[in-house]
Amino acid sequence: MKINLNADMGESFGAYQMGADETLIKSIQSANIACGFHGGDPVVMMKTLVFAKENDVSVGAHPSFNDLQGFGRRKMKLAPKELYAILTYQIGALMGSAQTMGLRLSHVKPHGAMNNMACEDYDMSLIIAKAVHDVDQDLILLAPVLSELSKAGKDKGLRVGEEIFADRAYEEDATLVARSKEGAVLHDPAVCLDRVLRMLDQKGIITQSGSVLACDIHSICVHGDNAEACQTAAFLKEGLLGAGYDLRRLDEMI
Amino acid sequence: MKINLNADMGESFGAYQMGADETLIKSIQSANIACGFHGGDPVVMMKTLVFAKENDVSVGAHPSFNDLQGFGRRKMKLAPKELYAILTYQIGALMGSAQTMGLRLSHVKPHGAMNNMACEDYDMSLIIAKAVHDVDQDLILLAPVLSELSKAGKDKGLRVGEEIFADRAYEEDATLVARSKEGAVLHDPAVCLDRVLRMLDQKGIITQSGSVLACDIHSICVHGDNAEACQTAAFLKEGLLGAGYDLRRLDEMI
Amino acid sequence: MKINLNADMGESFGAYQMGADETLIKSIQSANIACGFHGGDPVVMMKTLVFAKENDVSVGAHPSFNDLQGFGRRKMKLAPKELYAILTYQIGALMGSAQTMGLRLSHVKPHGAMNNMACEDYDMSLIIAKAVHDVDQDLILLAPVLSELSKAGKDKGLRVGEEIFADRAYEEDATLVARSKEGAVLHDPAVCLDRVLRMLDQKGIITQSGSVLACDIHSICVHGDNAEACQTAAFLKEGLLGAGYDLRRLDEMI
Amino acid sequence: MKINLNADMGESFGAYQMGADETLIKSIQSANIACGFHGGDPVVMMKTLVFAKENDVSVGAHPSFNDLQGFGRRKMKLAPKELYAILTYQIGALMGSAQTMGLRLSHVKPHGAMNNMACEDYDMSLIIAKAVHDVDQDLILLAPVLSELSKAGKDKGLRVGEEIFADRAYEEDATLVARSKEGAVLHDPAVCLDRVLRMLDQKGIITQSGSVLACDIHSICVHGDNAEACQTAAFLKEGLLGAGYDLRRLDEMI
Repeated sequence: MKINLNADMGESFGAYQMGADETLIKSIQSANIACGFHGGDPVVMMKTLVFAKENDVSVGAHPSFNDLQGFGRRKMKLAPKELYAILTYQIGALMGSAQTMGLRLSHVKPHGAMNNMACEDYDMSLIIAKAVHDVDQDLILLAPVLSELSKAGKDKGLRVGEEIFADRAYEEDATLVARSKEGAVLHDPAVCLDRVLRMLDQKGIITQSGSVLACDIHSICVHGDNAEACQTAAFLKEGLLGAGYDLRRLDEMI
Repeated sequence: MKINLNADMGESFGAYQMGADETLIKSIQSANIACGFHGGDPVVMMKTLVFAKENDVSVGAHPSFNDLQGFGRRKMKLAPKELYAILTYQIGALMGSAQTMGLRLSHVKPHGAMNNMACEDYDMSLIIAKAVHDVDQDLILLAPVLSELSKAGKDKGLRVGEEIFADRAYEEDATLVARSKEGAVLHDPAVCLDRVLRMLDQKGIITQSGSVLACDIHSICVHGDNAEACQTAAFLKEGLLGAGYDLRRLDEMI
Repeated sequence: MKINLNADMGESFGAYQMGADETLIKSIQSANIACGFHGGDPVVMMKTLVFAKENDVSVGAHPSFNDLQGFGRRKMKLAPKELYAILTYQIGALMGSAQTMGLRLSHVKPHGAMNNMACEDYDMSLIIAKAVHDVDQDLILLAPVLSELSKAGKDKGLRVGEEIFADRAYEEDATLVARSKEGAVLHDPAVCLDRVLRMLDQKGIITQSGSVLACDIHSICVHGDNAEACQTAAFLKEGLLGAGYDLRRLDEMI
Repeated sequence: MKINLNADMGESFGAYQMGADETLIKSIQSANIACGFHGGDPVVMMKTLVFAKENDVSVGAHPSFNDLQGFGRRKMKLAPKELYAILTYQIGALMGSAQTMGLRLSHVKPHGAMNNMACEDYDMSLIIAKAVHDVDQDLILLAPVLSELSKAGKDKGLRVGEEIFADRAYEEDATLVARSKEGAVLHDPAVCLDRVLRMLDQKGIITQSGSVLACDIHSICVHGDNAEACQTAAFLKEGLLGAGYDLRRLDEMI
């Protein structure tokens, strides 16, 4: 019984602060580090790597569309070769910085709009998977369970870390309930923990109707946008430990 | 009797073209590839790497201050940790892209103002050398002969590729004659070739007064800004071959 | 019998050159000046304004999506308030610079993907027209004949400068024939001139089938990407003068 | 007996928040609005203008070096024509946006390193003053009392708004005590208020030794970086009102 908690980190930029990394890192075992395209800058990246190392958290690249003003949340339609190139660039940039402290990247997780678009687009996902594979075939692709991204990663021969969201409701087709709909986001930490434990126990995601969609689950995505989110993450960690789960780095999961 | 010719490449950006890479690459054995901070973008970088591979030219990172508008030619005073971080970021970004095609970087050569400032500043050079070393201690630091950058590279334990300029006059202290002074730039290819051959023969740079300052010479820096510059590069290559020199990739020189 | 020739200008950026402004300006009466979002920078903008003033060419803003790497040619889906804000920002930026030399902007012409998208999207065009109007209701909106952009500009109460393309074939619905189709671009200057004269004479655009779609025509868009394009522009200018047309600044046309 | 309180505003960027504008605006009469070069973006600028209008606060441009990552706090040595051009660009950009809501800019205040450098450099200040003047000679230049920037503004014929800092100690030569020295920053709101009232009363700044350096004082610069800073600003406002001062917009002061 082992599981991983992952979160986005290093999304500050210059004088601009984003997220409560110092608090959140105590609850997770793997960090997705922004690579300068939607957030992060070379100094922030280096600082975040040091910080992850000190806390024995495995590090992964969190590449994005090149859109600082939109924080990588705006859809962009890129030519395949550009999508491929911005991925190898960003993964490499973090890799170069990590090598200076003897760290090896455990994984890659696309950010924001790139992730959302890929989850519904197999062809786009295959380009992402190919870029990750071609930079280093030992990298894990961290992707939502039952997504096109997860599928493409496996088809490309990558190890895929399959993640669920602790605080988001699922539709019957395994996609997330749109934030605009009621009940899309779960706010009560106890409810989040209970649902996560049930999904791990039943080996699948539980949809709004209560159906179980069978899948592997390697990781749980948590957030650190504010103090409340950090408390939820800490609550989940304690709850999982209390239920007998072993919390592991992503590279120890797959 | 072996020598290397190096040149900056991949400095186009999006729709903006810079340099005649297609012509120039026929004359060189090592390319310094821009990493997106003063020129280049992920797509251009990838294209330039493919192009270098096809021509069996060794590839190096050509990192810069983050200054696209100034083409990396404007002096910036960065905190040591920022200088270090932008170097590991850029070297890694090219490394990640190169890995996708089985290429390994042979060297790093700082661009523009960063290079000029480092050549006169040992402490700054030591940070550069440390960043190169920490990413990959097998990387060659390509630096002007007798510069602080060359000195710091050796002190840090790096292999240093020492380069001369074919078309620039030297002061008595081994620095370049300022472009504002008469005679600073040599325009006649025959004069350039003759001087290069004498410097290689006498194992040192020849200053304006005719003095020889002894130094190792591993590489000659050429330019491809326009058709004329490319012709000079081709003329140098032919002249060196004619004089019995073996033209080698930088990673075969040191 | 009066007509205007307009062209995009000031699209260089830092060390990157784009277009042959010095040659092209001799053939036109109105310049659409890039505002830093797809090309141009504050120094280039100032230089282009000086240049336009010296040649008595009227100046307009050529705003774009914020996409230097894509040269403003990539589609972006912006929120209405962001589209509005990037327009008032860019128009103002050129206006501020123009005021320093006593110049007043004559017009605004959206660039690249923003223009293309607007031509087919009335709601988007209305936001553009509103932004232009709200900054200065005396500004002319320069738009392709029979486009949604032209329609929205008039509906908003703006003076609309209606332009045709000298070198592009038209579909039966007044849209441009896609570049991927044969015959989309006319390369022979004599053919371009002949067709332009017929369109002016018949007061409408002539489609591929030879039909005439009636419309006002205030301006002809020409290009200066290279020496050949500049020659076509010069040929058109001379042909129009030879046919008895009076070449006027856009602010003297409407 | 009238005085003005000014503060920097609109320095958020995309998803990144900076400053407590909503609270701070209740205490000031003039806002210096970032123009996108060190902070702010077109959407943030528009929102801040609306906000200032609702609160009847006069608006000024807060232009900067083009350095988002460094928040405009890093020194740059620009060519005079570039310094001039980035100022006319930024002032114009805010002006264009302000015109859409019938607002007229009252003033210009350089940001960060540009301001600091100008305060000690008359020639640089003269370029700034000329740029402000050439865009609109009615604009007020808001500058620290007894600085080279203030001097150059007057020499250029501009109205100069002379500002003091409520919370910073002054050297005998009217420069600010470096932050690295003890006592450089005053933290007690009551001490700040007392000192401001004495400076207004004695018509000059009071140095560390207690000397009074005579000067006009039109405005007091306050900060809104956090809740504490906003409280100090509110305390100053109440204290000035209590002492019988009339709080006025900058364009009503000079």
